[in-house]
Amino acid sequence: MEYGYSGKILRVDLSKGKITVDEPDDAFYRRYFGGSGFIGYFLLKEVAPDVDPLGSDNKLIFAGGPITGVPIAGSGRNSVGAKSPLTGGFGQAEVGGFWGAEFRHTAYDAIIVEGKAEHPVYLWIEDEKAEIKDARHLWGKTTLEVQKIIQKELGSTAIRVAQIGPAGENGVRYACIVNDVNHAAGRTGLGAVMGSKNLRAIAVRGHGKVPLADEKAVNSLAKWLRDDLKVNRGAVGMSENGTAGLLAAFSMIGGLPTRNFQQGSFEGAEKLSAAKINETILVKRGGCYACPIRCKPHVGADGQYKVDPAYGGPEYETLASLGSSCGIDNLEAVARGNQLCGAYGMDTISTGVSIAFAMECFEKGILTEKDTGGLKLSFGNAEAMVELIELIARREGFGEVLAEGSARAAKSIGKGAEELAMHVKGQEIPMHEPRYKQGLGFGYTVSPTGADHCHNMHDTIYERRIGSAGTAMGIYEPIPSQELSPRKVRLQLYGSLYQHVLNCLVFCQFVPFSSDKMIGLVNGITGWNTNLWELMKVGERVVNMSRAFNVRQGIDKADDFLPKRFLTRFDSGPLEGVSIKKKELEKALETYYSMAGWDSEGRPTSAKLEELDIGWVAEL
Amino acid sequence: MEYGYSGKILRVDLSKGKITVDEPDDAFYRRYFGGSGFIGYFLLKEVAPDVDPLGSDNKLIFAGGPITGVPIAGSGRNSVGAKSPLTGGFGQAEVGGFWGAEFRHTAYDAIIVEGKAEHPVYLWIEDEKAEIKDARHLWGKTTLEVQKIIQKELGSTAIRVAQIGPAGENGVRYACIVNDVNHAAGRTGLGAVMGSKNLRAIAVRGHGKVPLADEKAVNSLAKWLRDDLKVNRGAVGMSENGTAGLLAAFSMIGGLPTRNFQQGSFEGAEKLSAAKINETILVKRGGCYACPIRCKPHVGADGQYKVDPAYGGPEYETLASLGSSCGIDNLEAVARGNQLCGAYGMDTISTGVSIAFAMECFEKGILTEKDTGGLKLSFGNAEAMVELIELIARREGFGEVLAEGSARAAKSIGKGAEELAMHVKGQEIPMHEPRYKQGLGFGYTVSPTGADHCHNMHDTIYERRIGSAGTAMGIYEPIPSQELSPRKVRLQLYGSLYQHVLNCLVFCQFVPFSSDKMIGLVNGITGWNTNLWELMKVGERVVNMSRAFNVRQGIDKADDFLPKRFLTRFDSGPLEGVSIKKKELEKALETYYSMAGWDSEGRPTSAKLEELDIGWVAEL
Repeated sequence: MEYGYSGKILRVDLSKGKITVDEPDDAFYRRYFGGSGFIGYFLLKEVAPDVDPLGSDNKLIFAGGPITGVPIAGSGRNSVGAKSPLTGGFGQAEVGGFWGAEFRHTAYDAIIVEGKAEHPVYLWIEDEKAEIKDARHLWGKTTLEVQKIIQKELGSTAIRVAQIGPAGENGVRYACIVNDVNHAAGRTGLGAVMGSKNLRAIAVRGHGKVPLADEKAVNSLAKWLRDDLKVNRGAVGMSENGTAGLLAAFSMIGGLPTRNFQQGSFEGAEKLSAAKINETILVKRGGCYACPIRCKPHVGADGQYKVDPAYGGPEYETLASLGSSCGIDNLEAVARGNQLCGAYGMDTISTGVSIAFAMECFEKGILTEKDTGGLKLSFGNAEAMVELIELIARREGFGEVLAEGSARAAKSIGKGAEELAMHVKGQEIPMHEPRYKQGLGFGYTVSPTGADHCHNMHDTIYERRIGSAGTAMGIYEPIPSQELSPRKVRLQLYGSLYQHVLNCLVFCQFVPFSSDKMIGLVNGITGWNTNLWELMKVGERVVNMSRAFNVRQGIDKADDFLPKRFLTRFDSGPLEGVSIKKKELEKALETYYSMAGWDSEGRPTSAKLEELDIGWVAEL
Repeated sequence: MEYGYSGKILRVDLSKGKITVDEPDDAFYRRYFGGSGFIGYFLLKEVAPDVDPLGSDNKLIFAGGPITGVPIAGSGRNSVGAKSPLTGGFGQAEVGGFWGAEFRHTAYDAIIVEGKAEHPVYLWIEDEKAEIKDARHLWGKTTLEVQKIIQKELGSTAIRVAQIGPAGENGVRYACIVNDVNHAAGRTGLGAVMGSKNLRAIAVRGHGKVPLADEKAVNSLAKWLRDDLKVNRGAVGMSENGTAGLLAAFSMIGGLPTRNFQQGSFEGAEKLSAAKINETILVKRGGCYACPIRCKPHVGADGQYKVDPAYGGPEYETLASLGSSCGIDNLEAVARGNQLCGAYGMDTISTGVSIAFAMECFEKGILTEKDTGGLKLSFGNAEAMVELIELIARREGFGEVLAEGSARAAKSIGKGAEELAMHVKGQEIPMHEPRYKQGLGFGYTVSPTGADHCHNMHDTIYERRIGSAGTAMGIYEPIPSQELSPRKVRLQLYGSLYQHVLNCLVFCQFVPFSSDKMIGLVNGITGWNTNLWELMKVGERVVNMSRAFNVRQGIDKADDFLPKRFLTRFDSGPLEGVSIKKKELEKALETYYSMAGWDSEGRPTSAKLEELDIGWVAEL
């Protein structure tokens, strides 16, 4: 390969302790592009339907994209995938930070981890060199401790570490993989897969550079971005507030998940707001590789709740999931919870939603102190929330129940608990209210990973005006967020293809590049002549590969649902009376299947697979 | 509208003699883009299924596209549409020359002609002004005579004339509309529609300029094109030989329609070749508005067959249809036939294929001299071919039979003639052998206008290598021309969307712009941010609107066929033994419907229409 990719994919068999290199042809790179494209391809080809997600036959894939490692904003990310222990289906998550870039500076484009090591190990990759190292001394430690030890024993603080924490070791079904201790590949329980392989960490150091086909074009885009931030102040809101800026606004408009999605506004929202963070616990702002926006907070506290700024700080999803969703307005407690999730390696969304679920069960008498080991799981009980995170990570006491995820927990609890578990396909719903963003809510039902806010389009973007991003996709009129019509399904279909494009490029969705600029960047790096048509087809390829993976697992139409709560009207707040209508949801599903080229059971037709140039999928 | 379009569409009601102006909103222009997009929209909205193509309720639409009239190659064209008297379905054709550009320099973007004038009239548009003028003195005259008279009576040779000839006046079902006497909107019988409205001509003169959003970008593309031609010699083959360069090559490879598609090589090919034209009858080369390529020949002869260079000269389609397809190797006779078709306003493809059909009937004894009025219609009889063109245009003698098109003629002749009529949906097959280009051949079956080589992708382009045009569409591997597989259907689907994009932009397919450059041109003109995704969806919109138009007429799956000849093996020549296989064709159709989002009867699903943002079509 002349530009961009190295053409080498590392294959690490932990059972045999053997490391080999795959060298796919150029067409592989162009057809699957990177990130979730690679993941979709390898999972479908190599992980058979009877594979136990936590068994040695599952495969764990780390992948960069064409942009990864190029010194420009949005390029520090990587994608991780495996069969999910949370959903039993397609598992995939993206993560920011620096690890992805450092990895692409080694000789490899992706890593396929197979088998299971006899004892805890970690992987050490430096440029061409890759070796499996003993990690017995790391087991049980926090992520920050492990990172320090690895950097020390390998002799450089420039080394980047992607790792699991104790939660991953203990098989918590929503354990995550943590880069640089404060960036998480949070969703679908990939940390548990890594733990099940006895792989604690992947340490990387690369001295290479991603070759650029057109350095001038890339530099000019990097300059545009810096100017946009400084002169046009384009992403300045993200720079000043990060994603936390959403919280107060969502509460005001009635779309902030509150007390396990029972309400859409939280009376304590102001206490969790970006303004409050900036005013109180913010120590500094951080960011990802080569990005001038720096949307990530580092927070500290030294009162009842100790918070170490090394772990970053809560962003919107965490503020809402551990905060409003649990009825908690104690910012320091939420920051502490965030730190624990980082230290132990747990997805904050699934953690918060599972705790909120338990709280509602507790308030409704489905759970009692006897069940919870004495924990008073009332909404708003910050201490209980923090304590429960510890228990979950260690799978101790009631933590053992919640470590299975809210869907499994609800099943084991019984007594009507299942209606209170806010999940799709076993994955907990992120902090975007389906009744508020009805297209996104619908998107949760068909996303290959269950409820996922990174696979779907947020209605609010096209609610008031159609900017250049809309017209570029061929959307010409604004559509209200609380609408679930055929034209909304269209927006959702196109939008989800675009989101999957970002996940193949492994590009950050917050970098204010138009699709034209993003494509210019890809072409400037690779020397390709790609365009939005080709990329949307790449995205569609992933949507269909991941759907096919799920269908083969028996996950299909019956699993494309939303919890009943969202079909019930808000009984108060700015969105009082608003719900998703069952008939509209059913019709939307039918319309989506048809638009997507799937049969009435939601299975991709062989003609659709052929159209996407992945006819091989139909044969599986 | 700030750039590009004027926002004004002229509506001319010939019954009432009334001229009004429509002013669609901006979204109309963006959604339908131009050319066949406008035509698809207006025909579907305004021409009910029970309308007689040759009755006063049919509408005739002339439309430019966003590029039309900008001084850069490929921009002199316009599109014409109506319900087709040849197929009874969607009728549309494009045409080059200068008329389109001149028209866009008036105040209007398109013309909708309605009703029927009491006596022959012509339309005269100068800038804002539009008037209906008497044309009784023009009726019956050749196109060159009429053009001269109009230019004289309106006082300027700068006036451009689009007109029918006597064939259109006489309702020949494949009469065409002729721009500047040597460029034809040839297909689907639009000249007969114009004749049925008693509209002989539309004369235009515009002093305006298409405003440019980014003049520098447009100029730089124009410069690129000139340099490409002069320095890189990119389109130099077209410049030197025009499309005629194909003929000898096709014959050599076995894909030249010969003797009504009985053979694929013609022993007289060399006599009809570009080399021979350049050596013998070529007077000069001509071209279209603002185009440096100048692919069009002007030829002259003064022997047995008189040929006036004013009428241009035969291009590939004509050389093959009047030449090899009729077994004729007399270049001057073919040039004379070409001139007659231009003078009388008849599509050379349908004319040639209808004559070849009659010749085969004659040779097989299905027609005799009694039927033909004494004409010896043997293959190779150049005099008979020339004479028959005269008869058809005047609907005299046996010409009356053939003026109905080969499908209707075959039906009226009976005695097995139907198997010898080489048409799809009533439209005669152009000069690209379905057995040679099997994807294109398949494309004929689903094209909304019947057999049409401008709605489909030519297999040969992607037979040996995938250049940037292939990768831009997401095609990664070459596919043999003689293959009709699911991947070929995919290529055909994508390729036909792209061809329809060209027809919406009303852009010439021979200008060697990559899709990127073409899109850069559109954006430079309009200030839009369009891209290949949006444009392919525009193309798909037209494919579905035109399909819906046909479905409403009862034209559907049963009409998606190829003549049996193409399912029969060549019995000689370089492609001996090659045919389209019936099962593959049936399978391809099924695959195409499914890929296209159509039901098993070939009808667009309502979800597909909603996806294309034309849900209104489903209601019709």
